[in-house]
Amino acid sequence: MRKVYLAGPEVFLPNGREIIEAKRALCRAHGLEPASPVDLGGRTFSSKFERGLYVSKANEEIMRGADAVVANLTPFRGISADVGTVYEVGFMCALGRPCFGYSNTTLRYLERVKSGFYCGATTIRADGGHIGSDGHRIEDHDMIDNLMIDGGIVASGGKFFTVDADPGETFADYRAFDACLGALAVMP
Amino acid sequence: MRKVYLAGPEVFLPNGREIIEAKRALCRAHGLEPASPVDLGGRTFSSKFERGLYVSKANEEIMRGADAVVANLTPFRGISADVGTVYEVGFMCALGRPCFGYSNTTLRYLERVKSGFYCGATTIRADGGHIGSDGHRIEDHDMIDNLMIDGGIVASGGKFFTVDADPGETFADYRAFDACLGALAVMP
Repeated sequence: MRKVYLAGPEVFLPNGREIIEAKRALCRAHGLEPASPVDLGGRTFSSKFERGLYVSKANEEIMRGADAVVANLTPFRGISADVGTVYEVGFMCALGRPCFGYSNTTLRYLERVKSGFYCGATTIRADGGHIGSDGHRIEDHDMIDNLMIDGGIVASGGKFFTVDADPGETFADYRAFDACLGALAVMP
Repeated sequence: MRKVYLAGPEVFLPNGREIIEAKRALCRAHGLEPASPVDLGGRTFSSKFERGLYVSKANEEIMRGADAVVANLTPFRGISADVGTVYEVGFMCALGRPCFGYSNTTLRYLERVKSGFYCGATTIRADGGHIGSDGHRIEDHDMIDNLMIDGGIVASGGKFFTVDADPGETFADYRAFDACLGALAVMP
């Protein structure tokens, strides 16, 4: 049975535990084994920093022991995916494991940057390039997020699914997540 | 001579080419060889998406051929590092290459999220946990960015340097970048 690492920012949500358990159950329904999350087991640490290092190292070990990753790349605290999750996608892609991603918005990166970051204050150069109000170039690869993320997922043999979740359901809509599991489950 | 992959969002800056050349020259001054960036060589593509895939794949190949990464993790388009750069840090950490990071602000993640994302609208729970106005928990690991980034850098044998750049000099201050090069150059 394939073991799948579930990456995403759910741990920061007030109902995160419930969402994570629902996602783990969906894995099993698809014949996939969800990798166990970090277990601190009452361990104490000399500092917040040491605790963070422990969690990071434990997550890396769990990733090395997993066969694939399914990553929640829904924009989090800004216009792009959660950076911790992105780190994990890069990590698993480097290991040659299939990486599946999902986002609960179908807005592409360019649109999110234009509306969500620059609040519409962008211009278009003569060559068609988009420029933010700070003079920075906004890349347009017709992709969901940064090209390293979309490209890494494709190169890994995975796929990036998006749906438009209802307002207020951004983290409670499991359709795109389920599409990842379905695609992973039928991989040869 | 160690070959170093320079990761960062400089390519989006109006003076990006100049900054990249200055950073490549600093590498050489430290006895390090900067890995060559992607060369599109006048290649044409059937779509913007195909072009993006090509760049992603080329960057991954360049990373696999490099001995270390020095990553500009200065917050970009939000409170965290550029997600493309973060993907690359995760990628190189998985390959076991030393990862050095730098940020041109000394504000830690918790402070950036509180002020830059929630505009101060956060509360503190009885157990000391920070909560944003949307109910999301804000992690506090006394780290510069997400724990996977800070932790990955430490585990790789690298180091994360920060300085406070003058306003307007966020991308033109090379002190933290130079500290990374100095530390990498003396690695056994």
